[in-house]
Amino acid sequence: MKAESLTLLFYDQLRDLHDAEKRIAAALPKMEQAASNPQLKAAFRKHLGETQLQITRLEQIFEAAGQKGTGKTCKATQGLIAETEESIATYTDPTVLDAALIADAQRVEHYEIAGYGTVMAYAKQLDNDHALGLLQQTLQEEKLTDQSLTVLAEALVNVQAAS
Amino acid sequence: MKAESLTLLFYDQLRDLHDAEKRIAAALPKMEQAASNPQLKAAFRKHLGETQLQITRLEQIFEAAGQKGTGKTCKATQGLIAETEESIATYTDPTVLDAALIADAQRVEHYEIAGYGTVMAYAKQLDNDHALGLLQQTLQEEKLTDQSLTVLAEALVNVQAAS
Repeated sequence: MKAESLTLLFYDQLRDLHDAEKRIAAALPKMEQAASNPQLKAAFRKHLGETQLQITRLEQIFEAAGQKGTGKTCKATQGLIAETEESIATYTDPTVLDAALIADAQRVEHYEIAGYGTVMAYAKQLDNDHALGLLQQTLQEEKLTDQSLTVLAEALVNVQAAS
Repeated sequence: MKAESLTLLFYDQLRDLHDAEKRIAAALPKMEQAASNPQLKAAFRKHLGETQLQITRLEQIFEAAGQKGTGKTCKATQGLIAETEESIATYTDPTVLDAALIADAQRVEHYEIAGYGTVMAYAKQLDNDHALGLLQQTLQEEKLTDQSLTVLAEALVNVQAAS
């Protein structure tokens, strides 16, 4: 592929992720409020801080390239967040809602893991080390968030005979 | 969590995946048609066959439990597929469109990897070995599809100085 074509796709994909992150940042406080488990609440709060940092990193990449970061609507994230809202509206049992919120959040994390994996591959090909370094930090955070949600889920869904 | 609560969530999550798989099966022929690279076309065709099998596996799980498989709309997959349609409408250069389709397809695969990871954890807790065995096969296929798309992407986005 020609470098200019890949560059076009690279910034389009970054704009998709920028819109996704902003939607996730808006959704996380609602997820924190809806959660009951203190560790899950803390995990959503921590991830909000990371998400705000991830937005800043994307804006640094746009700024360095003189590209605009707006103009894309991430329809997938719109759908992912609609599912989270559906979980909040559907499950009244706090433990069930917590487990559903974790399942929803892990889908969001995986969307981002796929998205950042893609743009990292493009950054490598384009020899954009500045972007690569920033994107790598974000991908690492998304993977760690996913892993910590797995640990929380395993504790929550542990079926007790006496319960 | 009580076993009956986890059972409720398990089948809700499976219904979400069932709707997702049906939407993906409907989208894959359009993605195959839009793709130019013969290996990418073949990958989408192969994954359609797998997706049909994955739908059958989910239906086997519902049938064994006397549960219905319908009634959920997977809004996330609706959004993911809308993004694929947007790529087809946006990119005219065949190589760029192929790369965009791979990026979209990998996001879909990661949605499924997260979703099947969740239901496998529930199946383990519920000692549902029948479901666990079927879900494991599907998860393995989704991971292999994602990996083969990475290989294709790397070949496609390889920027040649002479191009």
